This record gives sequence, C-alpha cells and structure tokens, in this order.
Amino acid sequence: MGKGGMSHGNAGEAKDGEEENMAAWLLGINTLKIQPFKLPPLGPHDVKIRMKAVGICASDVHYLKTLRCADFIVKEPMVIGHECAGIIEEVGSEVKKLVPGDRVALEPGISCWRCNLCKEGRYNLCPDMKSFATPPVHGSLANQVVHPADLCFKLPDNVSLEEGAMCEPLSVGVHACRRANIGPETNVLVMGAGPMGLVTTLAARAFGAPRIVIVDVDDHRLAVAKELGADEIVKVSPNIQDVAEEVSQIQKAMEAGVDVSFDCAGFNKTTSTALSATRAGGKVCLVGIGHGEMTIPLTPAAVREVDVVGIIRYKNTWPLCLEFISSGKIDVKPVITHRFGFSQKEVEEAFETSAGGGNAIKVMFNL
Amino acid sequence: MGKGGMSHGNAGEAKDGEEENMAAWLLGINTLKIQPFKLPPLGPHDVKIRMKAVGICASDVHYLKTLRCADFIVKEPMVIGHECAGIIEEVGSEVKKLVPGDRVALEPGISCWRCNLCKEGRYNLCPDMKSFATPPVHGSLANQVVHPADLCFKLPDNVSLEEGAMCEPLSVGVHACRRANIGPETNVLVMGAGPMGLVTTLAARAFGAPRIVIVDVDDHRLAVAKELGADEIVKVSPNIQDVAEEVSQIQKAMEAGVDVSFDCAGFNKTTSTALSATRAGGKVCLVGIGHGEMTIPLTPAAVREVDVVGIIRYKNTWPLCLEFISSGKIDVKPVITHRFGFSQKEVEEAFETSAGGGNAIKVMFNL
Amino acid sequence: MGKGGMSHGNAGEAKDGEEENMAAWLLGINTLKIQPFKLPPLGPHDVKIRMKAVGICASDVHYLKTLRCADFIVKEPMVIGHECAGIIEEVGSEVKKLVPGDRVALEPGISCWRCNLCKEGRYNLCPDMKSFATPPVHGSLANQVVHPADLCFKLPDNVSLEEGAMCEPLSVGVHACRRANIGPETNVLVMGAGPMGLVTTLAARAFGAPRIVIVDVDDHRLAVAKELGADEIVKVSPNIQDVAEEVSQIQKAMEAGVDVSFDCAGFNKTTSTALSATRAGGKVCLVGIGHGEMTIPLTPAAVREVDVVGIIRYKNTWPLCLEFISSGKIDVKPVITHRFGFSQKEVEEAFETSAGGGNAIKVMFNL
Amino acid sequence: MGKGGMSHGNAGEAKDGEEENMAAWLLGINTLKIQPFKLPPLGPHDVKIRMKAVGICASDVHYLKTLRCADFIVKEPMVIGHECAGIIEEVGSEVKKLVPGDRVALEPGISCWRCNLCKEGRYNLCPDMKSFATPPVHGSLANQVVHPADLCFKLPDNVSLEEGAMCEPLSVGVHACRRANIGPETNVLVMGAGPMGLVTTLAARAFGAPRIVIVDVDDHRLAVAKELGADEIVKVSPNIQDVAEEVSQIQKAMEAGVDVSFDCAGFNKTTSTALSATRAGGKVCLVGIGHGEMTIPLTPAAVREVDVVGIIRYKNTWPLCLEFISSGKIDVKPVITHRFGFSQKEVEEAFETSAGGGNAIKVMFNL
Repeated sequence: MGKGGMSHGNAGEAKDGEEENMAAWLLGINTLKIQPFKLPPLGPHDVKIRMKAVGICASDVHYLKTLRCADFIVKEPMVIGHECAGIIEEVGSEVKKLVPGDRVALEPGISCWRCNLCKEGRYNLCPDMKSFATPPVHGSLANQVVHPADLCFKLPDNVSLEEGAMCEPLSVGVHACRRANIGPETNVLVMGAGPMGLVTTLAARAFGAPRIVIVDVDDHRLAVAKELGADEIVKVSPNIQDVAEEVSQIQKAMEAGVDVSFDCAGFNKTTSTALSATRAGGKVCLVGIGHGEMTIPLTPAAVREVDVVGIIRYKNTWPLCLEFISSGKIDVKPVITHRFGFSQKEVEEAFETSAGGGNAIKVMFNL
Repeated sequence: MGKGGMSHGNAGEAKDGEEENMAAWLLGINTLKIQPFKLPPLGPHDVKIRMKAVGICASDVHYLKTLRCADFIVKEPMVIGHECAGIIEEVGSEVKKLVPGDRVALEPGISCWRCNLCKEGRYNLCPDMKSFATPPVHGSLANQVVHPADLCFKLPDNVSLEEGAMCEPLSVGVHACRRANIGPETNVLVMGAGPMGLVTTLAARAFGAPRIVIVDVDDHRLAVAKELGADEIVKVSPNIQDVAEEVSQIQKAMEAGVDVSFDCAGFNKTTSTALSATRAGGKVCLVGIGHGEMTIPLTPAAVREVDVVGIIRYKNTWPLCLEFISSGKIDVKPVITHRFGFSQKEVEEAFETSAGGGNAIKVMFNL
Repeated sequence: MGKGGMSHGNAGEAKDGEEENMAAWLLGINTLKIQPFKLPPLGPHDVKIRMKAVGICASDVHYLKTLRCADFIVKEPMVIGHECAGIIEEVGSEVKKLVPGDRVALEPGISCWRCNLCKEGRYNLCPDMKSFATPPVHGSLANQVVHPADLCFKLPDNVSLEEGAMCEPLSVGVHACRRANIGPETNVLVMGAGPMGLVTTLAARAFGAPRIVIVDVDDHRLAVAKELGADEIVKVSPNIQDVAEEVSQIQKAMEAGVDVSFDCAGFNKTTSTALSATRAGGKVCLVGIGHGEMTIPLTPAAVREVDVVGIIRYKNTWPLCLEFISSGKIDVKPVITHRFGFSQKEVEEAFETSAGGGNAIKVMFNL
Repeated sequence: MGKGGMSHGNAGEAKDGEEENMAAWLLGINTLKIQPFKLPPLGPHDVKIRMKAVGICASDVHYLKTLRCADFIVKEPMVIGHECAGIIEEVGSEVKKLVPGDRVALEPGISCWRCNLCKEGRYNLCPDMKSFATPPVHGSLANQVVHPADLCFKLPDNVSLEEGAMCEPLSVGVHACRRANIGPETNVLVMGAGPMGLVTTLAARAFGAPRIVIVDVDDHRLAVAKELGADEIVKVSPNIQDVAEEVSQIQKAMEAGVDVSFDCAGFNKTTSTALSATRAGGKVCLVGIGHGEMTIPLTPAAVREVDVVGIIRYKNTWPLCLEFISSGKIDVKPVITHRFGFSQKEVEEAFETSAGGGNAIKVMFNL
C-alpha cells in the first residue's frame, strides 16, 4: 500500500513546534495502529475540529476484520472512524456560522454538488461521495480533523459530545423513517434489535409512530429495545423457518395492521416476514444490508401494493437528530454501553469489545 | 357447484315476453357454455348495458384452464369476461349523467367505499372488491349486464366500442405508470413484450416517457412493441442466465440511465435484470404476476435506493384512458389481433386462439 | 318554511309505544326549539345512536344568528348540531363492526362516493356532501340519530363521550396539519388563539412540531394557548397595522425560520402577517374563514415559493384523533369550558354562552 | 458607482496578445455601452464559453429603464444578459464532461450548496444565489464568460444555439409546470399571453396537458398562443372588471373543470379570475410577478382547497428543456421574433425593440 488519503488528510509529520496529530490507522487485517496523521490545509469553507467522541460502527469492525465492506475495499492504510463530535479549533476565512470553541457533530460525507442526484436533493446517492473511513477516504478517529463547516452542526447546550457522535447512527434511523414516511398514523414493525433496529425504533418513536413491535432472537437485545420504547417485543427462534407463524405472532402483538416494516437484519427470513406481515398499501424498508441474492415472497407483497424501499446513508438529518436529542424525544445514552480512551491498548480493546458477542451495543471513544 | 353470483346477476330464466339474456358460463375446466343469465334488479344508481365488445384476458384463460387465478378459485358456475364496452339500455331512477343509447366502457370492480383503503383513495386495494369474473362474482361476457352508473364511462364520439373495451387492459398500464410516476423525464425499461408489456409501453409513451427500451425473447412480440412505439428492442435468450450481460445490452440501448423498469414478465431473471439495470434513486414496478418466492438481488438495488412498487388492478383510470385514445396519444387498435362473434362455437374458438401459442395478442368478441 | 330534512331524519311523530325522539330545531333567527324529530328508517349499513355529548360550533351560532354560514342558507326548519358522540342502540343488517352499547364518535358528513373527488380520496370536497346541520341536512343535537356505521368510530375505553364529540373540531386541526405536512421538523406559527387556533395548536404539537408560536390580541386566549402547549405567545394590538413589526416579534419568538403558518383568524392583517413571516419554501394554511376579498401581499410570498393551502372539513381524521386523545398526545378536556343539559332553557343558555364575549371556548351538551 | 462584479468577471483590460473581451455594460438608466470585460481566472471546475446567442428578458429591460427589478438594485456598472448559449473555448483542470468546441446552453445561477435549501434540492431558493445580471453579479451579454461546467449543458446536434438560449425562459415554464404537477390529466388555464404565458403554454403542452385555454386582451398575442398550441383562446377586455363573466367564458371554452391555472400577468383581475375559475382541489400557480399588495378572493378559493403556489427561477430544468426541444415536443423558434448583432448600435436597437409596444416577443442577439 502506498500513500493514502484524499480530501480528509494524510499520513505525515507535523510542523515544527506544533503538537503532532495522531490517528488510528487501519494497516491490515486486525491491525490498527495509532500513528501521526497530517491534516490537509484548511480551505476557506473548512474548519479544524479537535475530536472528543468517536463511536465504533459495524462497518469499522468489518473493515478491521476483512479490509472490506459492501463493495468498498481498503487498499492503502486508512484512518478509521466516522461517528464523531468535537470542538472547533480553527475556522476558514469564509466560515461565518462557527467559531473556535463551538461543540459540533460531524456529518461524515462530502458530496460533489455537481451531479444530478446532488442537485435534486438526493445527495446521499452521489456517486462521488467522499465519506470518513470509506476507502480511500480517511476517517475521524484522530485528535484533529479538517472538515467542511457546513457539515459541522453546533450542539445545543444540553447535548453532550457523545450524544453528538450518536447523530451518525441515529441518522440512519431518521433517514429510514423519512423514506418510509413514518408519522402518528404509522404502526411500525422492526425486524432485528441490533444497533440498526434500536436507532430505527428510537427514530420511529420520535416521528410519532403510535405502536412499535420489535422482533429478535435474543432476549437481551429485546429487553434493551423495550427499555428504549418498543411497545411489544416478539422473540422468535433462529432455527424455525415458519414465516406464517411469525407473522401471526407479530399481528397479534400489533393489535392492528402493520403499516411499515423495517428489516434491520437482512436475512431471507426477516425480509420474508416483513413482506408478509405488512398490510396492503404499506411499506417495507430495508435498513440492514442483506445478502446479494435473496429468496423472498416479493410477488404476494407486490400485488398488495406493499412497496419496498431501501436506504443508503442519510441526508439533512443532523439538525433533526439534534432536535430530537435536545428536546428529549430521543435518549441515545442507553445505547452507549462501553467507553474507551484513545491509547493503542484501548483502541484494540474497544474494537474487540465491539466485535465480541457480548452485550455491547455502542462502543465510544472519549479523546 | 350450487348457485353462483353476487351483485352482478344470476343464472335463471327471463321474464315472459322479454328476450332472454345469454352469457358465457364457466362450468368446469375447459368448459364454457352459453346459457341464460338472469340479471339482478336495476338499483337507483345502476344502469343496464347491452354488451357490444368484450376482450379476453390472460386471467380468463387461466380460469378456463385451471378454475383458478392467483388466490381466487372458481367454486360455482361463473359468467366469464371483464374487458368490456356496450350501450346503455336502461338507467336507474337516480342516474343523471347517462341516458339510454350512450356508448360506455365499463370499469369492472365495485369497491365497498366503507373501508379505510377506499376512503383514502386506494379503492383498488379494497378487501371487499366485487369485480367482473373474479369468483364468486359474475363477469360480463353476456348480452346484457347491470352495473353501477359511476363505473360506466361515456365514450367520446371518435372512440369505438372495441377501443372502449381496451380501456381495461390499458388501465393496468396506466396505473403502473402512475405508481412509477412516469413523465417526460423518465427513461423506461419494459421487461416482456406480452400484452402487459405492450399496454405498459403504450401508457409510458402517453405519459411522456422520452425513451423506452423493451426486452423479450420473441421476435414477433418485439416487432409489435417497436410498431407500438418502443424506441429500442433488445432480444435476449431464455436460456442464458447472465443478468450482467443483459443489463449491459439494455444500458447500451438506452444511452442513458434507466429511471424506471417495469417487469411485465415476473420471472426471477426478468426481475433481477430490472433491479440491476435501474439507476440509483430509480424505481422497479412489478406488473406481471410472478411466482410466490423469487430469488433476486434485492439488496444491491436497495442500497442504491431503487424502490420496488407492485400494482393490483387500477383506480380512476377510465377517463384518462379515454382521453389518451380519443386524442390519438394511444392507438390500441393494433393490439386487437382477432375478432369473434358470440356463438357457442365462436366462444370456444376465441378462447383457443387466445390460449394458443400463435401471434394472438388481444382476442375480442363483438356481440 | 316547509318540510325539512334529507337523509338524516324528519320532523314528525314517533310511533306508538315508542319514546319520542326530541331534537333542537332552528326555526328562525335566534329561535331554537326542542321538538320531536322523526328518524329515517335504519338502512342495512346504518346504526341508530343515542346522543350523549354534543358541542356547539361557531357555525351553529352563525346559523342561529343569521340563518346562514358561508354560502349555506337555512330555508326550512333544521335540527342543529354536529360535534357529537353517543351510544349505539341499534345496528342495520349488514353492520359488522359495531354492536349496541358501543360508544362512538360521529363523523358528520356523508359523501357520495360516486364523483371523481370522492374516488380520488378527497371526499371532503364532494359537491354532494350531506353533513349534519349544513342546510338542508338535519344535525345531531337530538336524543337519537341514524347515521352510516362507517362514520361512527368506536371510542377506546379511556376516551370519554365528550372527548369523542371533540373529535370533530379537532379534525379541522388535524386536517390542516396534514395539508401543511406538519412533522418533527416544522416550526409552526398560529395566527389567532380562538377555538380553531387552539385545536390547530394541539394537532401541530401531536404531529411533532418542535416549536409553536401563537399570536392573538387577547390575553386570556393566549394564556389558554400556552397552557395547551404553545411554546411562545405573542400579543399584538388589533389597532396597529404594522405587519413588519409583528413579523419581527414573531421571528424573535420563534428563534428560527417559520416553516408553516396557520391563519386561524382570517383577517387581512393576520393573513398578511402569515404570508410575510413564513420562510422561503414554507407554507401558509388558511384555517379560519376570511372575507371574500382580501388585500394581502401575495406576490412577495409567491416569489419565495411560500405555498398557500386552504382547507374545508376533514377526511379520515377520526381514527387519528382518537389515537391522539387515547395516547395522551392531545388533551382536549381543557378546551371544554361550559356544560349544559338538553332542556329548552339550557339549550338557549348554552348558545348564549357560546355566542357571548366571555371566556367560553367549547360549550358542550350532555344529553 | 465603483467597481462591479463578483464571481462572474470584472471590468478591466485584456492581457497582452489576447483578443479583448467585450460586454454590454449597464452604466445608468437607459445607458448601455459595449466595453471591455475582464474575465475571472478559470477555476478547476469552470469553463470559458464564447457566447453565440443571448436573448433579452423583461428583467433586462426593467434594469435598463429603472436600474431595478423586484428587490434588486443596480448600484454599480453591470454587464447585462442571462439567456444564453455558446461554444466552449477552454475547460478547467477537473472538468471531465465538456471539451472545447462543445455547444452549450448556460444555466445562469450559481447557488451556494451549503445552505439547507440547496441541500434539500430547492437550490432555486438559495439566499446566496449568484446569477447572471442580478446585481451585483455580471451577466452574459459578452464575447466570453467563465461559468461552472456543471451549469453548462451540451446541446444535442439538432438543437441550435438560439434554441439553447431559449432554455432559460422556457425553464420558467417548465419549473411552473413541475410545481403545479402538470400531466396528461391536467386541464390548464393560462392568464396572459406574453412571453411568460407562451413558454408556460409550451411547457404545459409538453408535460401532456390535454387541454389549454389562454386568456389575454390582445389579439396578436392570442394568435401567437394559438399557433404555439393553445386549444382555445379567450379575448377579454382590460376595462371590464367582471370576473364572473370571464370565468364563465373560460369554463365554456374549457368544456371541463380547470385543474390548474397559471397567472402569467400578475394583475388583481387575472389572479382573481385564476382563483375563481379553478376547480375544487385544483391549483393556481403565480408565474408573472404582480404587485406587492393584491386584492383578491383568496378565501373562496381556499375553502375549495385550491392551492396557490408561486415560483422563482427554476432548478434542474436544462436537461428537460433540451429533451423537449430536441424531440420536437416544443418548438421555441416561433417565439424568436427579432435578431440583432453585437454592436453598440444594434444593442441599443435590440433593447428598444424589446421594450417597445410592437409585436416583439423574444429578441435575440447573435454574437
């Protein structure tokens, strides 16, 4: 692997007399090292942020274990991390809305604003998106990063830096709820109570969903989902493949039609259950990334005009996430189960914790 | 089988001194007989129509061959036929917009107008829909039928009764185009050049689609599609299962991104090609009824936010179909390939023609 | 005036041996009399309801004072009242979802389900709507009424009959919020803190509006609005016509852009303020019925793409209103300020109270 | 006035050995002079275009006559012109889709892509929009301009440079039709047959409007409208203020309900007629910029849920305009009535022609 980096920075040495910026570099499978990370020059519309809170995402763990995630492959050393918040240290000459000292949450992806999709307001689909820790773009598990000011959102006084970092995973749930048009008339089914299922549950509640039923195979996850606001939990067996029986359990728990189902697991069975459980005219939203090929009862859903919508990333979600957290409509704190500092040893432990089969949901670095 | 019928009529004898109403009864597998059909009383909002043109639909053939279609099973003798137009003979006491002598096209389904779906404007999803020739409801291949006046649409002077009957299949294409939001900016892919593919092509053109590429395995069908207005035809092999190669052919023929794909065939392969060929942010609309379970690359489409929408029946389509035909934006006449009279022998021949593997597209009765 | 009534009943005598049904008849200006009201026969899809709670609406008062409201004129004696709830006494032969004893709230309008607007899901615009106490259709301030079962909505156990009657005014607010697409990202301005302003405030809060500013000239009304959930109140003078100054006060109170403004007053000045205060790309929804001609700065709003939407009645709102009340998202009880029984004297007092300039908001009959 | 310009260039001297770039400068009321115009440096995503066709817009004439238009005031010398097309001469280092020699139409406005409105896909509302000939930004009536490559749209081979320049006014009509959701089911009324009314008529036809009625006071304009595709023309008197009579004439000419009315004139009377003529549930779109205050019957329209939408500029319209022109769905050539070269004398004559009361519709410069 040669030199990495694009717009977000570079490996390299700090200038004389300046504190050296350190970052967590993914150097190979299962190999993360804290090493110097040279920042790019500050553009007129950029800000320099001192990172204070960075969460570990499932995709980070995938990259660490396999150097790939979906179609993306890590070919050169890459700084990891993308769920983050910090404090502004320096602002570019044209930046008007932020000043040093401001606490901000960072939206990780920089889109091109020149393609049709960007111009139509679907910038999350931009083919030239450059996003933290999506190779070959460096991530944000570092002391400092440089980022466009318009992607840094000032935290309300009552929102902590850790909560700011949680805006990234929460944004996935918010984007899913927007795509599925969740509101006070939408009874929601969530398949899967992992981190995606939990943020989707939190978001659906905040969008006003009157009733949420969540399904999983794991008692602990379901207990957390209940605590976070799911109305009913349905425990199913991973072995039994009887979709009709599951649908019956779900409909009983819902006591009404299922208007929207979120599949936050991505298995043939969970998607099949979601398709079958949803009422005529409803929607199924695929949040968890499933296998390439799926064997599913799509036609019986299609002839009931159950639409299937997928999601990728998010757009315009940070202000709403901050509103939800600041107003108390969403409490993300219970999702953060483990915390680590930013030393070589702790970084390794943190990723082990996140990857391990225990009860970790969100693992957070405090820098 | 016992007595049939619901709101649309009954087997029975005519009153004295009145011409006996005859209809084509499905009595068993491959058994269609012209027999008397007693009409229900004319309600205040009903009209009595003398049928003049009735087309044969694939579902009619299915019922004849198997006594079933999708989840519907013919358990009692049933009058067949539902694509129809005729002339008003009598109007109910409250009917204001129609008079005897008016030529009308009939929308076949009577919805309940009491359920949520009806009230929300999605009456095509009404669970209590009573529709011509959907068991146990009688169809319209008869000399006369009684039907609600608001489901009978007056034909403009320049629209023939046969064209009026064609509003029913065309409505499927129109409903599909509405669900997929076709307009002058939507490049359209149509998978399958059977009757559904053809009416979808006609409708997409009329909705303004700037470019339509249609795919099939059959040269004759593709030639008809081209004649009806498809810009490019792509012939594929039914044996070769290389989706990537097909997608490449399609994209070359389109010379642009595919905004919406209609799968009018319903095979794993056609749905897979539709999902893979559609651009990020586009839509796949399932028009042809496929198998219960499908094995398809849904996830790679979902992460490009390609939505999948299904359709069932149609709603509020007759006025638009008549506008399209009357204005010349759509010419349905080339789709009608065979015509038959309404005798026992001709009815049998007509269904054989429609079912046979020849070049029949739409087979029409002139009563 | 001759004989009244249409589908909802008739003046007349009760059958022998049956308790006589009494109703409040509007006989002339300022003349309301409790007199017998003969019910129409119970159709197969109808129910007979014993009325228990009926609220007085501003339109009822208009009719009493002037025999007209908007374009509607009372030409024959008419039973008044339309905000109501009661208990099912009898059900028609085809009614399946209700049984005697069920407590229900009544949606007052019967639409035709035969016109384009009904079929497209905009039944509130039906030109043949027959609605309680909209002349020449009788109202529901009576011991008993007959009504279609599908317009009677069963009350959850924790919702009282009075709260059921409140679904009607609340429905106006709910319909306005739907038309203006209120959600958790919509900062809302409400012009006018009368009954319409209050139900709109309640509905906007329930739809998730993060911030609501309400404007009025009256301290008492503003205090009630604050109690019901408005975040900020702005008191303005009825005399000073400085729109710019009001806009400035409102924007200061909002601390953000105004995404949607509801004009619940209908004066030139309130509409002007709403148009001027709303951000580019926002909406103004006209809830209060204003004068025929208005002098307003429409162009400056139009060139900021501020859309103006009006509302009439409501559609599909009862289930959501009941969900909002049952879940506690909306508490309508503080809006009910006065209660009366159903005697001649109390009916007169109740209408005087409602019409009077005091602090009455909603006046309710308990029958 | 001091030095002008922002991103689009500057008055100044050409480099040695280079042909001097000349532009039409607005120096004061009724004072236009061709003078040197120094271009800004070519950024990596910019292109340099040799202008070939520039049309005169009503706003250009306003600026010339009054130095102002709407809220914009010309305070320093400004190059005029913004409806334009030309040939690429040079491309920036990062430009991939254009090469020198490409014929392009230019979208004039550069939005910030950092504000909420840009990110939500409503970039036409960007408060920091910098657009040709909107003070203090220079226009494009010059030999050469520098512009972002993503705002330059390659002309199909069968589209001329003049037609390319016409994309700008046509974009207003296209944007209006999108905002009003025009399609094959929308009967359209156009108030005013000036340039805005004509491009709106052309666009409505291309979006599939089945029937278009256009209203004006001038016989010549109406004749042009008819030639361009209006189905019916209605001549009204500027003096008679009887809205009801006009509405009656219009509805007779439409022979159906008016689904959408475009007011392309902006007078109290034209807006009043548009509001009154539109069917329940329809839309009125304000295309012509009217007076600040208007006296109009807004309430009677609002209670029929007739929505009022305004427009400003356009977004994502160039590709569709080029498709409409290239496919022959729109023929803009008849709209160009006068042509001039780019000399001091001809510039003056051209503006006189455009401002004069004659039959000029679009006046075009060929450079």
